[in-house]
Amino acid sequence: MAEFALIQRYFSGLSDPGQDVLLGVGDDCALLQSPPGRQLAMTMDTLIADRHFLADVDPISLGHKSLAVNLSDLAAMGAEPAWALLSLSLPKIDHDWLQGFVQGFKALARRFGVRLVGGDTCQGELSITIQLTGFVEPGRAMLRSNARPGDLVYITGTLGDAALALQLLRAGKDPGALREYLEKPQPRITEGRALAAVGVRTCIDISDGLVADLGHICQRSQCAARIQVAQLPLSPMVASHVQETGDLALAVAGGDDYELCFSLPVAARQLVENLPFDCTCIGEILPGQGVELVREDGSNLPLPSAWEHFSS
Amino acid sequence: MAEFALIQRYFSGLSDPGQDVLLGVGDDCALLQSPPGRQLAMTMDTLIADRHFLADVDPISLGHKSLAVNLSDLAAMGAEPAWALLSLSLPKIDHDWLQGFVQGFKALARRFGVRLVGGDTCQGELSITIQLTGFVEPGRAMLRSNARPGDLVYITGTLGDAALALQLLRAGKDPGALREYLEKPQPRITEGRALAAVGVRTCIDISDGLVADLGHICQRSQCAARIQVAQLPLSPMVASHVQETGDLALAVAGGDDYELCFSLPVAARQLVENLPFDCTCIGEILPGQGVELVREDGSNLPLPSAWEHFSS
Repeated sequence: MAEFALIQRYFSGLSDPGQDVLLGVGDDCALLQSPPGRQLAMTMDTLIADRHFLADVDPISLGHKSLAVNLSDLAAMGAEPAWALLSLSLPKIDHDWLQGFVQGFKALARRFGVRLVGGDTCQGELSITIQLTGFVEPGRAMLRSNARPGDLVYITGTLGDAALALQLLRAGKDPGALREYLEKPQPRITEGRALAAVGVRTCIDISDGLVADLGHICQRSQCAARIQVAQLPLSPMVASHVQETGDLALAVAGGDDYELCFSLPVAARQLVENLPFDCTCIGEILPGQGVELVREDGSNLPLPSAWEHFSS
Repeated sequence: MAEFALIQRYFSGLSDPGQDVLLGVGDDCALLQSPPGRQLAMTMDTLIADRHFLADVDPISLGHKSLAVNLSDLAAMGAEPAWALLSLSLPKIDHDWLQGFVQGFKALARRFGVRLVGGDTCQGELSITIQLTGFVEPGRAMLRSNARPGDLVYITGTLGDAALALQLLRAGKDPGALREYLEKPQPRITEGRALAAVGVRTCIDISDGLVADLGHICQRSQCAARIQVAQLPLSPMVASHVQETGDLALAVAGGDDYELCFSLPVAARQLVENLPFDCTCIGEILPGQGVELVREDGSNLPLPSAWEHFSS
C-alpha cells in the first residue's frame, strides 16, 4: 500500500507528460516547466471524513468535491488550473470505492485541464489532501488585500444551498436538488478567470460562509463591509426556509458555498455586469472594520453566531 | 481550528515574501515566481502516526523528519529546495507539542532554504502532509530511468541504521546513537546537488530499503543490478548485528535510510569519488531485470523477504 503506483493505473490518462509536464507520476518528484510570463498560484487542503464530508458520501461525489474545494481557491485568485498532487489515506483498499473516487476526480480534472503529477497513498482514517498549482498573469491575481472604501461587493451564484442540504440530510430528509450544492460544488474557475481579466483585484471564495470570508477581505484590506440583506441572492428553497424560520444564518454563515465574493470600484461595475454569468451586488466596502448586515429599513441585523458547517 | 492562521504565528519568519515568494501564507493561494532557466521538481508525502512514525516520538524530531523525508525526494532529483505547503491534522491543539514540531521543522527548513508558503490545519488523527517544490537546471534532473548496463552503483552513507534503531526501540532497548538515524534522518540535499552538477543522471533515495529502491531503478531503466554484499557500507553497530545474526535483511531491506543510491558510467567514476563526501561503490548495472545480492565467493544470497519498516 506504500506505493502510489498501486493505484496509479486508476488515474491513467490524467498524468501524461506534455508541454509543461516533463515527468509525471512515477519518480521521486514530478518535473515541471512553468510557462514563461506566468506566476504560480499554489494551494493545499485536507478533507477528513466526518469533519469535511459525510463518511458514507458516494465516492464519485467525494472525488469531485475534494478537487472542487481546491479549485475554488485557484478560482478566487483568478488562476488557470494546471498541476495536482494527491495524497489519499484509506482505511482499506476498496476497488469499487476507488473507481468511483477516481471517476469523480477525473471528470472535474479534465473539465479544467488539471494534470495529476504525483502524490502517495497510505493506510489510515479516510482523508484526502490535494495540492494544486495554477498559472496567473503577473499583476492579475485577485487578493484579499485589495478592497478599498467605496468598492461595491458582489457574489456569484446563490447562498446557503449547501448548508440547507446538510441540515436536511442531518434531519434524515431528502435534500432533493440541493444535494448537488453540498456534494458536487462547481468551482468558479471560468468566473474567476473572467473577473481577473476585466481587472477585478479583490476576491475570496465563500467556503466558511459569507460573513466570515468577507470578514477576511475586510481584515486584510483594513476596511469594513456593509451587506444589504434584501439583496442577497437566494434560491427558491433557501428563500422559503428563510421566510419560514426568519433565520438568515444558514445563508450568510452556512459555508460550503464555493461561490466567489469580490469587490470592485464603482467605475468598473459595467465591465463585470456584462460578463456572461450571474453575479449580484450585495453591498459596499466602507472605512472601518468588520462586516455588518443591514435590513431594508436601515436597521442592523445581529451577526449570526457560529454555524455548524463543514469547513475547508 | 479551521484556519491555518491560528498556528501561522508559530511559523513566523519562515514565510516572509522574497524574490520568488510574491505572497506567502494568508490568502486563498500563495503566489510564486519560478526563477528563469529552472525547472520545478515537486513531491508530496503523508506521514501518519504509528504507520510512519511512533506516535509518542518527540515533536522536535517529528517536525524534522516530516520535512526530511520530503527533502530526500528533492535530493534524489538533484533539486534545490524552495517552497513548502504543510497540512497538519491534530487530535487536539497542544501548544507545547506544536512549539516542538515547529522548532524541528523550522531548523531544517532554514538549513536548506525552504520557505513555508501555505497549507492548513484540521482536527483528526495525527498526520502530516508536506508538499515541496524545488528548482533544477534543465537536463540535470536525476531520474530512475537513466541507468544503463555497465554503470556502477553507489550509495551515500551507511545502511540499516534506522531499521536497527527501530528494532531496538520495539524490543524496549535504547538504540543509543542510532536513534538519530531513525528520528532525525539527514536529507542528502548537498550530495544530490553535487551529484547532479558533476553529471550523474540516475538516482533514488533509499526510503523503502536498498533492494526495493534499486529495484525501482532497474524497473524504470529496464535493466538489472548486481550488489556485492561485501562492499555494503555498514556502521559498526549494524556490522555487529549482521555478524551476530548472520542476517543482512535489516541492511538491504530495512528502509527509512534516506541515503541516495545512484549509478554512473565507469568513465565518470573519478568525478564522483573526488566529491567531498563519502559514497561507496556497491555493484553494477547489468542487462536483464531485478536485483541480485552476491557473496564474495560469487554465490547468490537469497533476497530478504519483506521487512517490517516505516515506509514513506
